[in-house]
Amino acid sequence: MNAIEHFIQQVHFNDDGLVAVIAQDKDTGKVLMLAWQNEDSLRLTLSKMEMVYFSRSRQTLWHKGEISGHKQVVHRISIDCDGDAILAQVTQQGGIACHTGRESCFYRDFSDAGVVINADILKDPEIIYGGDA
Amino acid sequence: MNAIEHFIQQVHFNDDGLVAVIAQDKDTGKVLMLAWQNEDSLRLTLSKMEMVYFSRSRQTLWHKGEISGHKQVVHRISIDCDGDAILAQVTQQGGIACHTGRESCFYRDFSDAGVVINADILKDPEIIYGGDA
Repeated sequence: MNAIEHFIQQVHFNDDGLVAVIAQDKDTGKVLMLAWQNEDSLRLTLSKMEMVYFSRSRQTLWHKGEISGHKQVVHRISIDCDGDAILAQVTQQGGIACHTGRESCFYRDFSDAGVVINADILKDPEIIYGGDA
Repeated sequence: MNAIEHFIQQVHFNDDGLVAVIAQDKDTGKVLMLAWQNEDSLRLTLSKMEMVYFSRSRQTLWHKGEISGHKQVVHRISIDCDGDAILAQVTQQGGIACHTGRESCFYRDFSDAGVVINADILKDPEIIYGGDA
């Protein structure tokens, strides 16, 4: 068995066939996003060394950055002790992981006011996803 | 409504009433673990500012470190763009988050050999959980 299949065998996919995946900037340590992979998307990720997720809303493979150009190049992939979570250390192309145009999806903090925004929009999502713009 | 309830209202709990939670060392940026919270455990976390998870295997609240002493003191709690993941920046007491006695649960990396262990056991789990030992 090759290395990719050996790694995949360690993963405990949930009843929907998915595993939670954390993407972290390999240089800054910033946690960029949490998404999901099924077996096919994990296999593609390990062969391309670019993040490929499974979109639960669209029920399809989702090669991160295919439209936006904001691909995530994989440097290291780890699995946790019970095999139901994956950590990917990546280089975030374009410096934007979030569909809102922010570096990270975790841009809302708990505060005395309930929630406070902790990060600026770096690029207008309409420009990121708008095609000709 | 107070700040805690306002924050909880932003969370989209899944069909099992749970949300994925990433714990990250606030100083080193190391991702320590991924676990789950229900509404009660998130509420307790925000009031104690110590991580309280929901154990899916035991179907009960799980105040991290209650037995091991390895509590996680919360410095910052963030929520992602679609409200279905939480990031907690913590101080890991004892320097051990994983039940295997390692700093992080993500101690197995993808490699040419399939999987390679990337971290030493810092303390024997039998000593951590063994009571008199």
